[in-house]
Amino acid sequence: MTSPVPPALRSTPRASDAAEIRRIIAATQFFRAAEVDIAVELVQEAIDKGAAKSGYHFLFDDTLSGGLRGYACYGPIDGTESSWDFYWIAVDPAAQGKGIGQRLLVASEHDAAAHGARRFWVETSTLALYEPTRRFYHRAGYTDAAALADFYAPGDGKLILFKELGQEPASRELPL
Amino acid sequence: MTSPVPPALRSTPRASDAAEIRRIIAATQFFRAAEVDIAVELVQEAIDKGAAKSGYHFLFDDTLSGGLRGYACYGPIDGTESSWDFYWIAVDPAAQGKGIGQRLLVASEHDAAAHGARRFWVETSTLALYEPTRRFYHRAGYTDAAALADFYAPGDGKLILFKELGQEPASRELPL
Repeated sequence: MTSPVPPALRSTPRASDAAEIRRIIAATQFFRAAEVDIAVELVQEAIDKGAAKSGYHFLFDDTLSGGLRGYACYGPIDGTESSWDFYWIAVDPAAQGKGIGQRLLVASEHDAAAHGARRFWVETSTLALYEPTRRFYHRAGYTDAAALADFYAPGDGKLILFKELGQEPASRELPL
Repeated sequence: MTSPVPPALRSTPRASDAAEIRRIIAATQFFRAAEVDIAVELVQEAIDKGAAKSGYHFLFDDTLSGGLRGYACYGPIDGTESSWDFYWIAVDPAAQGKGIGQRLLVASEHDAAAHGARRFWVETSTLALYEPTRRFYHRAGYTDAAALADFYAPGDGKLILFKELGQEPASRELPL
């Protein structure tokens, strides 16, 4: 018996993604209420206008039965030559520990690099709660660039990390 | 003979501001072409929707004859409790050296603090060209928080500065 091949990552948002993303992001408990709303608004805008016009790139990891188990959102930073922001990544808690997050992150980096990104920037919190988030990025080759004290709230700072992109051999097969 | 009293700062955008801001910002030569477009888009959105709905706050410094000689744009940062971004400030080169920039900055800080801002964040470039910009903020009590190398372009980093707000005595007269 062989394992079923997981579906390819999907880059085009569809109508059901907004509710699925709200469900997943709320379930992770890593996002503030305001952040949940922003994340859902971003994907809703991409559904309404089309991803190309929204200025955001998405990758969705679907289950075999057609549900969503993870997604990533990233895009070019206005006013920069080749810096991109990795805005959001979330994986359904029921599907965590299977490398879905790393697959989404690596695929996002490749897609961004293919669109001219040279640096990927990530922001997360300095709170102890986000230690797994920081480990996730450090394992993936990200470097701490700065910590802004009290940015999100008194006692809750912002950590900024980055990674140089485009250092991969061109022949490497894309994980998409 | 007494000097005429300068008009009070204006917070409500008007239709002529978009073209005036494009003129002033282009004249300073401190903004990239993409930034000029973004700055004009922001004020156009505030003109169209009303400043309150746009999420941005503005202060305009008008001349006695009704033209614009400077403006500032700032607002709360989504997902934070009390951090605000000071997005833009520009003063007509023909009117520089008169303290108009400092007046706009101080009035922006007071307005933001009155709306609950605790920290004002500013971003500028690490390029030598922006040394006057950095001096402007340092004189006004801002502290360097971080420098992100190669953020805007290779060799052109982003400097992030901040200032704690709301430390002023409540009785101090607002400069508005």
